[in-house]
Amino acid sequence: MALIVQKFGGSSVANRDRLFNVARIVANTHNEGNDVVVVVSAQGDTTDDLIAKAGEITHDPSKRELDMLLATGEQISIALLAMALAEIGCSAISLTGWQAGFHTDRAYSRARIKDLDTERIESELARNRVVVVAGFQGLNRYDDITTLGRGGSDTSAVAIAAALHADLCQIYTDVDGVYTADPRVVPNARKLDTITFDEMLELASLGAQVLNNRSVELAKKYSVNLEVRSSLTNVPGTIVKEVVDVEGMLIKGVAKDDKVAAVSILEVPDQPGISFKVFSLMAQNKINIGIILQSVGRSGNKDLLFTVPLEDAPLTQRLLEENRSRFGGREIKVDTDVAKVSIVGAGMQSHPGVASKMFETLYENNINIQMIATSEIKLSVIIKKEEADRAVAAVHDAFFR
Amino acid sequence: MALIVQKFGGSSVANRDRLFNVARIVANTHNEGNDVVVVVSAQGDTTDDLIAKAGEITHDPSKRELDMLLATGEQISIALLAMALAEIGCSAISLTGWQAGFHTDRAYSRARIKDLDTERIESELARNRVVVVAGFQGLNRYDDITTLGRGGSDTSAVAIAAALHADLCQIYTDVDGVYTADPRVVPNARKLDTITFDEMLELASLGAQVLNNRSVELAKKYSVNLEVRSSLTNVPGTIVKEVVDVEGMLIKGVAKDDKVAAVSILEVPDQPGISFKVFSLMAQNKINIGIILQSVGRSGNKDLLFTVPLEDAPLTQRLLEENRSRFGGREIKVDTDVAKVSIVGAGMQSHPGVASKMFETLYENNINIQMIATSEIKLSVIIKKEEADRAVAAVHDAFFR
Repeated sequence: MALIVQKFGGSSVANRDRLFNVARIVANTHNEGNDVVVVVSAQGDTTDDLIAKAGEITHDPSKRELDMLLATGEQISIALLAMALAEIGCSAISLTGWQAGFHTDRAYSRARIKDLDTERIESELARNRVVVVAGFQGLNRYDDITTLGRGGSDTSAVAIAAALHADLCQIYTDVDGVYTADPRVVPNARKLDTITFDEMLELASLGAQVLNNRSVELAKKYSVNLEVRSSLTNVPGTIVKEVVDVEGMLIKGVAKDDKVAAVSILEVPDQPGISFKVFSLMAQNKINIGIILQSVGRSGNKDLLFTVPLEDAPLTQRLLEENRSRFGGREIKVDTDVAKVSIVGAGMQSHPGVASKMFETLYENNINIQMIATSEIKLSVIIKKEEADRAVAAVHDAFFR
Repeated sequence: MALIVQKFGGSSVANRDRLFNVARIVANTHNEGNDVVVVVSAQGDTTDDLIAKAGEITHDPSKRELDMLLATGEQISIALLAMALAEIGCSAISLTGWQAGFHTDRAYSRARIKDLDTERIESELARNRVVVVAGFQGLNRYDDITTLGRGGSDTSAVAIAAALHADLCQIYTDVDGVYTADPRVVPNARKLDTITFDEMLELASLGAQVLNNRSVELAKKYSVNLEVRSSLTNVPGTIVKEVVDVEGMLIKGVAKDDKVAAVSILEVPDQPGISFKVFSLMAQNKINIGIILQSVGRSGNKDLLFTVPLEDAPLTQRLLEENRSRFGGREIKVDTDVAKVSIVGAGMQSHPGVASKMFETLYENNINIQMIATSEIKLSVIIKKEEADRAVAAVHDAFFR
């Protein structure tokens, strides 16, 4: 008997038929003798509908009240799924984020889990019930409801798997695994059987949109075995774990992220503390930084380039302009018309041919590179947004043909 | 400076414009220097929509899960109203039932408030915030969400007013006060300026549909001054309080309740314990009994007649038939085609002319009376449902012409 955490996204629970489909997957797992904790997101467009309701009232809702509002989406899902499970004869109980013991910091709309008190979940499992937990939400120390931000339900699932030392955390989605590229962009993309946490982390943070990077980080930290698989087909997915067979493909995938903006601060004084001032300003405002590049100082000036999430572009622009006197610079540009295209694979850096092959491919396809960033297992370029899909297809073709 | 509790029903917060209308009423009250706690219901048809969602899944949802589901309706309302208040410059914070400190028993779907811990509400009031509380909901000792059943938001409002010793509890509704009869049935019905708790209690429990009887009982118990008024017109409503001017009208109103079923158990043995067995069975199943009549025992048998809420009619029928061997009886009938029509007024019983005037009026209108019940301040008859509106109009005409 194993303990399995299963997470289902919003499209998997969007309507009655989908809910019963999920209920059958869960009940089968439970009937095989496993303890099961299920984490679900809000149904289909519920979250967007709730945001639209708030948008009718104000263009600048309090984040606390927005979290209060949005948390209802998952609460509806858990109640309905618990009913569907009962209807097919599987004993189940739903728990909101706070009932399930999720304690977070107080950063409304993007809270981080500080602690998970599993007492209630464990006592319900001990009664042989499937426990259906609302993803994406928790409670801060003021007893106020918080939400975890994008991909929060994945994070909730991994946190439960970590805290309960679950044998497996299955992330059910509308794709049947992790592919070498987005199959909608690259039709001959291949499904991977296994991938390491680090590779997945790069793919996730680079916009592969299969798994949220916070959830993969958490899985890596607590060695939670993840499986990405489809709720619509009963086939094995992709296993994400610490070490995988070092044989096989050098490059694991090509990813695109077009939810990104490129920020340039041109000709800032070449003196200590400038980067600190800029990035602490970003951090105070909870803006996540992606790539950072700094040009070599020349004639007393340097350029500072970095990427931020697209949604934070207006705030970034405003913050930089308001605080310009603190770090100088001739010009501030926030370019939202860009995309990041990346290749990922462990051991890539020891194969210098990889980078040149990517650059060659882009050159042959007449795609201009605006920024380049590398790590041990990835290589990213910032290019024009309209050229991103063409770049992904060409690069995938070059490596996986 | 006073402390005022204001309660708004679902139609008052049904959409953006209605929400801002409510926000303005609340903000005005707050701007006049009062502390304000607002209790709101779910928007418009939200509760019905959620019940329909559950109905797609199962015909017999777990009441615990149904409460989990329905509680989201009020949570949406409080978040949106807090946003609307902020938008018009009024500092506000929303609290769910459990955040507001509502502790209930464990009777899902019709829980009773056991305790109200006002610490959070008071601390928010001390920060000069309007506190927006989700009506209808609380938390039981298992930390599970419960709902208070029909009219629960009124009860929530009165409970807060009682616990905080509020100066006034205003129940905003779509009518501008308590009338001598339903104005939709009797066009020349008159609005009352004041009414006693007992009179209101009879009117509420008799189906006047203005105030829920549990909320009036609670208001009477804790001497909470109530005002029933409209959220759409800025005119004084009807004040409900302990003692009102004894001058004036003898009869305060005519009420109809067609959400009632008449139960007859015919020819049960005339021996002790029969009533106990029947009514303890009802109580165990949380079925509220209205009128109870018992015929005089004759030749060793008696008839037991009572009314139950219409929604409980199928359950009542089933329970009585399953347990028939415990109390005997020749025949069990549950008649759902009935209505209760009542007249209410303090001191009525000392004026014997009142009852005969009502019976005479019904006789003149050829309306057959199936059951009669009286109390100190009311007189009710059970008649055929299809004759109820005609009976109300005729009786109102007889007393208020």
